[in-house]
Amino acid sequence: MRRNRQVILVSRPPQQGWLSEENFRLVETPLPEPGEGELLVRNHWLSLDPYMRGRMNEARSYAPPQSLGEVMLGGTAGEVIVSQHPGFRPGDKVVGRLGWQEYALSDGSGLRRVDDAGIPLSASLGVLGMPGVTAWIGLFDICRTQPGETVVVTAAAGAVGSVVGQLAKLHGCRVVGIAGGAEKCRYVVETLGFDDCIDYRMGADEFWPALKAATPARIDCLFENVGGEVFDILLGRMNAFSRIALCGMISQYNSAPYPIRNLSSILVNRIRMQGFIVTELQERWPAALAELTRHFAAGRIKYRETVVDGLAQAPAALIGLLRGENFGKQLVRLI
Amino acid sequence: MRRNRQVILVSRPPQQGWLSEENFRLVETPLPEPGEGELLVRNHWLSLDPYMRGRMNEARSYAPPQSLGEVMLGGTAGEVIVSQHPGFRPGDKVVGRLGWQEYALSDGSGLRRVDDAGIPLSASLGVLGMPGVTAWIGLFDICRTQPGETVVVTAAAGAVGSVVGQLAKLHGCRVVGIAGGAEKCRYVVETLGFDDCIDYRMGADEFWPALKAATPARIDCLFENVGGEVFDILLGRMNAFSRIALCGMISQYNSAPYPIRNLSSILVNRIRMQGFIVTELQERWPAALAELTRHFAAGRIKYRETVVDGLAQAPAALIGLLRGENFGKQLVRLI
Repeated sequence: MRRNRQVILVSRPPQQGWLSEENFRLVETPLPEPGEGELLVRNHWLSLDPYMRGRMNEARSYAPPQSLGEVMLGGTAGEVIVSQHPGFRPGDKVVGRLGWQEYALSDGSGLRRVDDAGIPLSASLGVLGMPGVTAWIGLFDICRTQPGETVVVTAAAGAVGSVVGQLAKLHGCRVVGIAGGAEKCRYVVETLGFDDCIDYRMGADEFWPALKAATPARIDCLFENVGGEVFDILLGRMNAFSRIALCGMISQYNSAPYPIRNLSSILVNRIRMQGFIVTELQERWPAALAELTRHFAAGRIKYRETVVDGLAQAPAALIGLLRGENFGKQLVRLI
Repeated sequence: MRRNRQVILVSRPPQQGWLSEENFRLVETPLPEPGEGELLVRNHWLSLDPYMRGRMNEARSYAPPQSLGEVMLGGTAGEVIVSQHPGFRPGDKVVGRLGWQEYALSDGSGLRRVDDAGIPLSASLGVLGMPGVTAWIGLFDICRTQPGETVVVTAAAGAVGSVVGQLAKLHGCRVVGIAGGAEKCRYVVETLGFDDCIDYRMGADEFWPALKAATPARIDCLFENVGGEVFDILLGRMNAFSRIALCGMISQYNSAPYPIRNLSSILVNRIRMQGFIVTELQERWPAALAELTRHFAAGRIKYRETVVDGLAQAPAALIGLLRGENFGKQLVRLI
């Protein structure tokens, strides 16, 4: 008889410290059977995302914390194998938040059927999923970016940043990425088509002149995924009436907060800075996905995935993601 | 023959340090004579405002710096004494930006005629002038405050803060002020009618519990005039989907910037923070002044002025304002 395998959160990492593989445990459980109105999904792909680190803390945040002893929360893409639900049939490909497990029972809520004809299923967790929609909403709804403006995006080689920059280029903007390491920067410019990319691992003394050279007209839209010291420097390069879409602060998730000194730029430059959570803006997903799918089908958006095989690798892969070891979208393939 | 007296900026204070009276010089000059299309104004009141400190630096800001050797820039209220301009007659009361001087020549640009029947002329530099309009725009256009929300305003006993709180009360909000010293807090609650006021001079250990008690439903709108350590603490008390109108950072104008650690609150709470400069939003002044005048005429807005007599006192009064020694609107009466 088939069994399910799940990853459970068994302990919390220190509030301002690094998580470790010991915070997780892989368990085997009986395969659940769908009752009336339910369906059983075989998850093929698990999405790893920076926000997961925040959920592991007990502190008040925009979402309740991940419970101890429960299956880790997370986005998934898979296939319906048994259905007692009128809206789904076996063979349907579905994207949802079914967590770190190979099989999952669902009542259909929060499940989105996807057409994977010509589109790899994993893309529905990346460029055609939450990260892609995040990029679109941050760029167009939060930053309200206009053609001709200068857009800077941090974590430029990541799942969100890579889409931000490509959408901004398609929109007629000058686009500068910030990324960690020469290889990522080369990819961002040569493959993704950004105008420039700055390696934040160079010294702070070199970073500022490089930033000035890359943004001769200063920054009109900053799509911020990282926070910390680089963000503080970028604040000093903002334009009058510029906007900051605060999407993430990955550099701050496992450490004490970096103290920000350039906040007066918000006042001096009349900046609008706004934090946002893409899952709260469901009414904008259809428009975002329609445009992303159109660009994707026409070959105008490129993407890259970092894939590890097997549920047991998920904890290490999440730690790697938080350390910036991934390239593009970090996925776990559930073989 | 009558002479004009002017205060000139003769040297700049250190970029991150205090200004001193030595940065200014009082000079006597010949009284100018208006030519065709010009008018001569006798200034009766000089407005002292925190933004003046920023203009004294040479650094890039939203406005060009105050030039050395020139009359200090600043708002004024006075009376036309000679006019060769078709739009003004002797006896007209006018508000403008005629600078730190007893008499000023003007071509009428930027000059606003005010009706001082029943309204003290000095009020057109305070509650019915730039500070009042700043309060109105920050509260309604930037924060978009709704009835029932909790509004917190710093420098609550100042020219702007005192109007912010009273407008918010008239709008049906819970209003908490932050001010320096027990006397100011008493005034804010007992005279201006705020729901509560917290003295930031109490220790940081006491401030947080006092803030929590005063804002049981957290903060929906923060009208920020001060910046620094108190602002950092307030960031930790913001509500989901709250707004911050960043109007000033007076605590930061004469010192190295205080490092802000709670910026992740912007992300976690999906806050919109926006800097604004009231003089750039001229299209909103008529609506703001109309509502302020209506409330003022009905006795619903109270105000207080701190007045020094004579142009020679202006430098010391500006230093006092930046130290928080004033109560309400700081003015110089040009006797």
